[in-house]
Amino acid sequence: MSRHLHLNAFLMNTGHHEAAWRHEVSRPERAHSARHFIELAQIAERGKLDSIFFADGVAVRGNVRHNTQGGLDPLAILNAVATHTEHIGLIATVSTSFHAPFTVARAFATLDHLSGGRAGWNIVTSGTEAEAQNYNLDKHYDHGERYRRAAEFVELTQKLWDSWEDDALVIDKSTGLYAETAKIHEVAHRGEFYSVRGPLTTPRSPQGRPVLVQAGSSEDGKEFAAQYAEAIFTAWQTLGEAQDFYSDIKARAVRHGRDPRLLKVLPGIVPVLGSTEAEAKRLEAELEELLVWDYGLAQLSGMLTVPLTHDHLDVAVSDLDLPDESEINGNKSRFTLVRDLGRREGLTVRQVIARLGGGRGHRTFTGTPEQVADTLQHWFEDGAADGFNVMPPLQPSLLEAFVDTVVPILQERGLFRREYEGATLRDRFGLPRPESQYAVAPSTTLDSAPSEGGFAGRRVPAPVSA
Amino acid sequence: MSRHLHLNAFLMNTGHHEAAWRHEVSRPERAHSARHFIELAQIAERGKLDSIFFADGVAVRGNVRHNTQGGLDPLAILNAVATHTEHIGLIATVSTSFHAPFTVARAFATLDHLSGGRAGWNIVTSGTEAEAQNYNLDKHYDHGERYRRAAEFVELTQKLWDSWEDDALVIDKSTGLYAETAKIHEVAHRGEFYSVRGPLTTPRSPQGRPVLVQAGSSEDGKEFAAQYAEAIFTAWQTLGEAQDFYSDIKARAVRHGRDPRLLKVLPGIVPVLGSTEAEAKRLEAELEELLVWDYGLAQLSGMLTVPLTHDHLDVAVSDLDLPDESEINGNKSRFTLVRDLGRREGLTVRQVIARLGGGRGHRTFTGTPEQVADTLQHWFEDGAADGFNVMPPLQPSLLEAFVDTVVPILQERGLFRREYEGATLRDRFGLPRPESQYAVAPSTTLDSAPSEGGFAGRRVPAPVSA
Repeated sequence: MSRHLHLNAFLMNTGHHEAAWRHEVSRPERAHSARHFIELAQIAERGKLDSIFFADGVAVRGNVRHNTQGGLDPLAILNAVATHTEHIGLIATVSTSFHAPFTVARAFATLDHLSGGRAGWNIVTSGTEAEAQNYNLDKHYDHGERYRRAAEFVELTQKLWDSWEDDALVIDKSTGLYAETAKIHEVAHRGEFYSVRGPLTTPRSPQGRPVLVQAGSSEDGKEFAAQYAEAIFTAWQTLGEAQDFYSDIKARAVRHGRDPRLLKVLPGIVPVLGSTEAEAKRLEAELEELLVWDYGLAQLSGMLTVPLTHDHLDVAVSDLDLPDESEINGNKSRFTLVRDLGRREGLTVRQVIARLGGGRGHRTFTGTPEQVADTLQHWFEDGAADGFNVMPPLQPSLLEAFVDTVVPILQERGLFRREYEGATLRDRFGLPRPESQYAVAPSTTLDSAPSEGGFAGRRVPAPVSA
Repeated sequence: MSRHLHLNAFLMNTGHHEAAWRHEVSRPERAHSARHFIELAQIAERGKLDSIFFADGVAVRGNVRHNTQGGLDPLAILNAVATHTEHIGLIATVSTSFHAPFTVARAFATLDHLSGGRAGWNIVTSGTEAEAQNYNLDKHYDHGERYRRAAEFVELTQKLWDSWEDDALVIDKSTGLYAETAKIHEVAHRGEFYSVRGPLTTPRSPQGRPVLVQAGSSEDGKEFAAQYAEAIFTAWQTLGEAQDFYSDIKARAVRHGRDPRLLKVLPGIVPVLGSTEAEAKRLEAELEELLVWDYGLAQLSGMLTVPLTHDHLDVAVSDLDLPDESEINGNKSRFTLVRDLGRREGLTVRQVIARLGGGRGHRTFTGTPEQVADTLQHWFEDGAADGFNVMPPLQPSLLEAFVDTVVPILQERGLFRREYEGATLRDRFGLPRPESQYAVAPSTTLDSAPSEGGFAGRRVPAPVSA
């Protein structure tokens, strides 16, 4: 079989263009309904896409004045979507900086159970002070600590996912043996940041471990991805940059002793589709027309960490007095990307805002289905991508257009599946199912553990304090 | 309209009888599938029940050897169920001891959005060391601290639910105004345990605030319930005890300045139904026959905090050397209930195990639909209950039996609704929709807040670190 590319649909409210909600075809009032997300997922599944994905952040600020705000818990949405889809992978963003590993491990194991093995976790460390301030912190952890925490968090999570061996669940009605407690392991983790006894409350999930996805592209982020991630969402404006990243991250994976083919690199693309190039350009202009400049200025100010007003709109980004990259704590990679985009293409603040409004730093491509397919094929075959993070600027309309017009061309060219094979997200991405680390290593099990605290755990809801 | 009783279905894996999973009609292999829970919820909705409810605990111990273990995240299940039901309330247990208030507030707001206003939160403080040890603690907080934490947690959660005024969301395509940021408030909470800036990421949910449910019956628990709870799950073996509790908790609510009618008291009942009394008794005996005595001994040991072996099976509970209630940290009320049950009825260890195996301290009632309806009516009309927490010992079969045989009798007698009215769980329970506390009090809003951290919050997924 020839190498197939992977397609993930990055879903959000009304689409990735910041003015999408104002477009006449948009229905932003549905952005908090389950029905909306179920429909989007079903469209993506109709296109045989590998997976859908929701970003997340745990703070809202003043920008909500001019931009849609979903703000719902992405795992909650995916649990709902799971029961209305059969094949498509379900990837949710959850931060390692603000949650307890036990809760997160259980949440993804649950999604994996409820979806029959389709769960994926996009691991973020969260980049903003506003988020930290919603979680008992005055100031966020510094960049290095965030990633040290993330590494310990993920390894601990893997232990919890492994804590029930695959055959621990027996369910023998005749003997009354429900689970073989000698195959259920304490994780007995005591690390720099976390202390967790385990085991997890759920039997091992269909995938063993949900798929790990990552998107940071700072130095810390790339090292983390090279070590743990099975898929990477990334953002590049040019083929050259994407190729450099691709070979760099694969080489890093090799240095961590991994098979680089088991780390899928998926650059983002924002396809503005029309049946003719002129129609696509018209749609792009329509959306740009709807941008709110005050909002764009505020956003760019945040990204570049300098105050910008209407007076700056026609100033070249290369003429702005910007701090050095080393002074940025948070979304370093976003800072660099925006600065370099402006400098490289000689763009003004206004032009950068329009570009970001269209795809937020991801590559926007405006054209016909054939042209979009061409560019995907080109990047895929030229060492820049194992597939793509598809970010329709208008949803559902441009997701539908992608599924109905671009996917068939990719299938025709032998680049994309015509039918789903296998049941799990690991099957979609061609990733092996990991064995439990406790199947081979000796450890304390529920049989050998002291019984203190005893019989009072999950077991059964307490008779009164249920 | 005459006073109607309320019915909540307490769902779990294969039912509340500990041997339920071994019964020939059980399908324990489905206990981790969404389909199972969706079917149970749909049965309950067919019966026009007010709500369904899942207990939870965040540790598993050796008892899983002989008893089913769900262990999935209950909120996840309810998010799935929400999209397959239309009317029934959805109540999940979440602990205030181990989670971040921002996460919990967002999770319930999300369920409320996805379900169109049907979310309820059963607030627990978690009673076991095993759970604490999964959350970075060597030892659980003491009883008093657990409830101080819970009170601050719940008040903070209410602030977050109120942080968007009801009319903050504008969605005006023509002007580009998505949300009125002057109506979105920081909560600026700095308390003994938590520090949270806010606002929440989601617009105010359909119910304004999800319904608060509680089940603790220690002194701390009762005071907490009297102050915050809108429904109480409780466990009483006798009418007299239930009446005492009912009038006590209502009086406590009055002392907290509340209308006692807005606090619904729902004792648990485990209905073992048969079309004749003999058939019901046969089913009860069948289930008892399937109990695993080792498991029952281990469980009772945990509850009474003394080691018990087969040698104790025929010893009277009143002859056991038990600690004083004051020495129990954790499920005090369970300890007391079990001890008193044994003493009051002169039961042996074996008899107590059989009784607990049937309903875990809740009242088991074995009989015909008519007899079950009679006892519900009696408790309801005699000042012991505003409704019931129905705990079918076998699920789905005895949930179906309850819905198809007991509910019609209650409807016939004018005690229970024939059709749903209103859309939300608050409508089911006859509870008002709370106004946002920020609609009347001045506070810092997203308009007046300093913009530091700025535009980098939820707003939009970062271009790279999405």
